[in-house]
Amino acid sequence: MGSLAGYAGRAVLVTGGLGMIGSNLTHALVAAGARVTILDALLPLYGGNRFNLHGIEDRVAVEVGDLRDAPLVERLVRDQDVIFNLAAQVSYLDSMQDPLLDLDINCRGQLILLEACRRENPHARVVFTGSRLEYGPALTTPVAESHPIEPLMIYGIHKFAGERYHLLYHREHGLRTTTLRLTNPYGVRQQMKHGRYGLVNWFVRQAMEGRTITIFGDGRQRRDYVYVADIVDALLRVALTDDTVGGVYNLGSGTGTAFREMVEAILEVVGRGALAHVPWPPDYPHVDTADFVADVKALTAATGWRPAVGLREGIALTHRYYEAHRRWYWE
Amino acid sequence: MGSLAGYAGRAVLVTGGLGMIGSNLTHALVAAGARVTILDALLPLYGGNRFNLHGIEDRVAVEVGDLRDAPLVERLVRDQDVIFNLAAQVSYLDSMQDPLLDLDINCRGQLILLEACRRENPHARVVFTGSRLEYGPALTTPVAESHPIEPLMIYGIHKFAGERYHLLYHREHGLRTTTLRLTNPYGVRQQMKHGRYGLVNWFVRQAMEGRTITIFGDGRQRRDYVYVADIVDALLRVALTDDTVGGVYNLGSGTGTAFREMVEAILEVVGRGALAHVPWPPDYPHVDTADFVADVKALTAATGWRPAVGLREGIALTHRYYEAHRRWYWE
Repeated sequence: MGSLAGYAGRAVLVTGGLGMIGSNLTHALVAAGARVTILDALLPLYGGNRFNLHGIEDRVAVEVGDLRDAPLVERLVRDQDVIFNLAAQVSYLDSMQDPLLDLDINCRGQLILLEACRRENPHARVVFTGSRLEYGPALTTPVAESHPIEPLMIYGIHKFAGERYHLLYHREHGLRTTTLRLTNPYGVRQQMKHGRYGLVNWFVRQAMEGRTITIFGDGRQRRDYVYVADIVDALLRVALTDDTVGGVYNLGSGTGTAFREMVEAILEVVGRGALAHVPWPPDYPHVDTADFVADVKALTAATGWRPAVGLREGIALTHRYYEAHRRWYWE
Repeated sequence: MGSLAGYAGRAVLVTGGLGMIGSNLTHALVAAGARVTILDALLPLYGGNRFNLHGIEDRVAVEVGDLRDAPLVERLVRDQDVIFNLAAQVSYLDSMQDPLLDLDINCRGQLILLEACRRENPHARVVFTGSRLEYGPALTTPVAESHPIEPLMIYGIHKFAGERYHLLYHREHGLRTTTLRLTNPYGVRQQMKHGRYGLVNWFVRQAMEGRTITIFGDGRQRRDYVYVADIVDALLRVALTDDTVGGVYNLGSGTGTAFREMVEAILEVVGRGALAHVPWPPDYPHVDTADFVADVKALTAATGWRPAVGLREGIALTHRYYEAHRRWYWE
């Protein structure tokens, strides 16, 4: 990608930089010659993992700290050219069980970062990652950015708030923000300790362990699984494209895959494991069973980005990574 | 209103009950024979005023405390039949200057109340007041509930979150919630200390004091001013109408009035004061200058409610009230 040259020598802050998206982004930024600082709280259940920086440990400054620590964040945002603001509570299931924690990280934390930018560095380029769960159930296929906002989960409500904060700080305070609505990310360097988010990765682990993967219902609901390298490519391009300032863009594969097909692809690629169907549990949040496929044309038009990694290839890359590095992620 | 009989002997909690809407609602509830408890923090800049209960002081239980005090709220929600959840930070200007305070009251406070209901009283009827500012700039006239949600101010972002929390706790936890999107309320028992919200009342005071009322720009933007008695009538009906559970309804006059006409009506009714036009200040949040008129047909269809007090009549009632009770509101 030619545009990567734009990062040579630039100062970049990645919040949540030890997580899946943040660490893959950091690898790309380091390769492009950026000077990267990471802020990550390494909260136990979340995706932060120091091994995610394997091979570039010496070329990245890591600050273990929390987005909600205003003085720390004020210090870190100073003199940054680009801020990728990825730190978050990322489980929609947890958001329902502890809405106040989700509020604290995904709303208060975001306001603290934006206030810090406003005071200390209003010229930085800021990219925020929201979620397809801002939309709620899809009324159309695919879902474009103009689709109604009817979030059914705390996580989606707060991601929408986070998105709006970023747009508001652009409009009112001149911050150079762009926000993205991510579909279902998966890939290398995701946490593998539990299945509370990132089911593709969780199923890769289950298959690698020869277990039976349980699907609720018939598994026909279609999802938009997007490989982490495609996300990284989009983030890198967005931050270098001035035309995206103040904008909201879907970021997904643009392709719908039935849940069941995704599981079958994993079983085939990994070559182990099995599949079982059970009814939906009665106490499960019954709010996320419809199809969802993102329309990503706006992002392509603005940046030239296109998703490049198909599901089977992404699963193969993921499987290979955890075969080599499994002990750093579970066991 | 015949339906008021439904409140005889019932236990009702009004959060923010010393403010304009809450106290007028409490007067109506007491008249209908309800046993009312008020929770109000009496925060200095806000609308809470003990004189608002003048005449019914002995028939209402007042708890001075904060919506964010979880143990207190858990105790208060027990054994209530109806909860009118009106406590809020209510200034959109303040929301822009102190977003974290707005977040704390209008999001965290709402989650605390809903969590308390879920644990202690999941059968209570709960009515929440959101805002027209959830919509952002109107793309249509009038604005129906299906209008896109594009809030441009922290206040509108957080009111939308509060609304979605209430709907979510209905769907996921069975709470019997309804949420309303209010336009521009005015009327008796509003605070008159400052003009940071409730400009109709503020201009009534300025006219009563013989001052010159300053309008930014030409004052042609139309607004939907709704008198507090109409709001109270709607709240009372909504809580008694099971069909509104899980719903979102606009609550306004349904009529657009040019800002300038509103000021001229005040000057005429009060018989003092003057009018001056100045350009919009350059640093003013330039996000609320378009027309806004609510479509209130859904609320009428669901409850039979109709707004009954025209702007001139409402201003006259307001003026008369403050002529009699001015010393309890300013001076």
